[in-house]
Amino acid sequence: LRTKLPAVGTTVFTRMSALAVEHSAVNLGQGFPDFASDPALQQMVSDAMRAGHNQYPMMSGVPALREAIAAKVATLYGHAYDAATEITVTSGASQAVQTAILCCVHPGDEVIVIEPAYDCYLPNITLAGGVTVAVSMELGADGYSVPWHKLAAAVTARTRLIIINSPHNPTGSILRESDLQALSDIVHGTDILVLSDEVYEHMVFDGARHESVCRHADLVARSFVISSFGKTYHVTGWKVGYVAAPKALMAEFRKVHQYNVFTVNTPMQHGIANYMADPKPYLALPSFYQRKRDLFREGLAKSRFTLLPADGTYFQCVRYAAISRLDEAAFSEWLTTEIKVAAIPVSAFYSQPQESGIVRFCFAKKDETLQLALERLSSL
Amino acid sequence: LRTKLPAVGTTVFTRMSALAVEHSAVNLGQGFPDFASDPALQQMVSDAMRAGHNQYPMMSGVPALREAIAAKVATLYGHAYDAATEITVTSGASQAVQTAILCCVHPGDEVIVIEPAYDCYLPNITLAGGVTVAVSMELGADGYSVPWHKLAAAVTARTRLIIINSPHNPTGSILRESDLQALSDIVHGTDILVLSDEVYEHMVFDGARHESVCRHADLVARSFVISSFGKTYHVTGWKVGYVAAPKALMAEFRKVHQYNVFTVNTPMQHGIANYMADPKPYLALPSFYQRKRDLFREGLAKSRFTLLPADGTYFQCVRYAAISRLDEAAFSEWLTTEIKVAAIPVSAFYSQPQESGIVRFCFAKKDETLQLALERLSSL
Ligand SMILES: CSCCC(=O)C(=O)O
Ligand SMILES: CSCCC(=O)C(=O)O
Repeated sequence: LRTKLPAVGTTVFTRMSALAVEHSAVNLGQGFPDFASDPALQQMVSDAMRAGHNQYPMMSGVPALREAIAAKVATLYGHAYDAATEITVTSGASQAVQTAILCCVHPGDEVIVIEPAYDCYLPNITLAGGVTVAVSMELGADGYSVPWHKLAAAVTARTRLIIINSPHNPTGSILRESDLQALSDIVHGTDILVLSDEVYEHMVFDGARHESVCRHADLVARSFVISSFGKTYHVTGWKVGYVAAPKALMAEFRKVHQYNVFTVNTPMQHGIANYMADPKPYLALPSFYQRKRDLFREGLAKSRFTLLPADGTYFQCVRYAAISRLDEAAFSEWLTTEIKVAAIPVSAFYSQPQESGIVRFCFAKKDETLQLALERLSSL
Repeated sequence: LRTKLPAVGTTVFTRMSALAVEHSAVNLGQGFPDFASDPALQQMVSDAMRAGHNQYPMMSGVPALREAIAAKVATLYGHAYDAATEITVTSGASQAVQTAILCCVHPGDEVIVIEPAYDCYLPNITLAGGVTVAVSMELGADGYSVPWHKLAAAVTARTRLIIINSPHNPTGSILRESDLQALSDIVHGTDILVLSDEVYEHMVFDGARHESVCRHADLVARSFVISSFGKTYHVTGWKVGYVAAPKALMAEFRKVHQYNVFTVNTPMQHGIANYMADPKPYLALPSFYQRKRDLFREGLAKSRFTLLPADGTYFQCVRYAAISRLDEAAFSEWLTTEIKVAAIPVSAFYSQPQESGIVRFCFAKKDETLQLALERLSSL
């Protein structure tokens, strides 16, 4: 059987989580909370099941949920999507990413990806027959940043799509207004589309604002904007996310969506739609995660790891040069099996081997979990 | 924006369901039950949420569910899949179909599809860059059957995959042992793969047995076998299904799966795994649906529709020549808007326009719903 994805093995998240279980390590690798989600939200899903919401919902999603999403985006970012034609509920952000890429990238089209990059972009570009053009972020004293002049230089007549991701996984960096202005200047006057992965939109710290593409009229007109309730409501296993896009793009998205998953879990959609009526849970996220970030950073500051900035997401990147000369994959494995704390090598987020001596920890964990990890990491 | 799927509009199911709602028609169009699912199953999902099963499960699915599936298949069809490496839980059968096609069909590969065919096969073949080779079923006095000599003649050196579907949507026909023998003879000695869509496996009537590909060692070694808990447990909106395939095929499937949905709703998987411990619910399905089929057929026998055989699925196809000369799409629309009973035109299941004067009704409905539809249909 000739493979469609020669470069692909099992994802680093699956491998490291399996290794963490096998070695009873504290799992700060794969990004997911180890604390309970809100019982009130669970109850709303149970109520939806009991109320009989168990059959196919509309292909594009339960109307109440699409309307709640449109209202949220309008309130937070000032762009009014039409809930009927411009929002589609997806089986998590992953499916939204795949479907967006499959619906617009033709064989031979180029897609610009900013690296390090979340690992699902590249294989989906390959599946679509597209060509990935990688632009590396630069790492300075202020952390990672996007060299927009290099990105501009990477644009060709074949460029179909640029993928951005802020807050950024794995680096924890965020795009600022000047970044979106730079992107806007690059795509202005072209027919290049943008895929904006904003799954960590509610995890931005130190009073900074999330620079959603939805704040920029020129960008939003050509963008698929993707988010995830799994991240926002601490239910990564529920697999409910969404994509927002102008009507013409959304029409193409739905053509593929309806033959991918067709539609998304009905009771979960109803439960989340109800839960969204109260904005407090997502408005509370920045301070909720900032406290955990600070707790984790304060602990690590006493260790031999060097902290990188962490402006958003629930990830903290660290240098380990003072501790080990192993490459990132080997160091992450050693950390998991010997020190019993799982991490993710940042090298796993590059299309070409690239070592920077940095690993990623997830701090979406109970304080006790973080304390236990900190004890172990401080022993190094 | 150049479309990836020029032939695709909104699915016939979405359109007819919307029309049914708009005109307050009895919806015998899209295939889904209008009765409640088992509260015990719902409770098991609620319990899973409360027990904290809300984060990413394993990429391939919750182990207990994969093991329950393997045990069921072994008991019913005598083939022992390895739950760890040969079964993957999917977001419904639709996602399983798309992922199976994307993982093995290369640009230019031919895929043989037997028509009429469920509408998700073709667009996914197109997305993969494949070429659909359609073979039409033949309609005789005994109903629809597959002309295997024609299918054999359609095989070329480029044939990569043959898609079969039994019990068959939309015709309600089932494949018999001789059919699978014919398929086996065709693929013997080739490297052609088989995708067997068996989502209606538990809806086979009159004492016939479901002729799963899993009963045929030679076929199972080259097949993706797909099923759906949505159909089996009356929860089409939960979007949980699975694919079973030999290890080498499954490895390719998972490469694409992990970048499509990545994984499937955790609490639903736990709930279904528990519920599967008791085989009674699915063992009771044939008689449950046979009674509804008989009720519906007896009613229709008094009408001017002509009944086609209905050996499996929850669909009943009928000829309407005695009632109208409209084409199938127009007749279905008229039936929905004027007679207030929604149906699906069988012409929607063909890649090339083909009229046979036949529409499909879904009888997965409460007896009262079927009675109301019968009253209206008998008035014609
Ligand atoms: C889909 S598994 C990976 C979870 C995640 O977003 C991450 O760890 O980066
Ligand atoms: C996925 S919507 C269609 C449901 C169905 O299987 C059918 O009506 O044929």
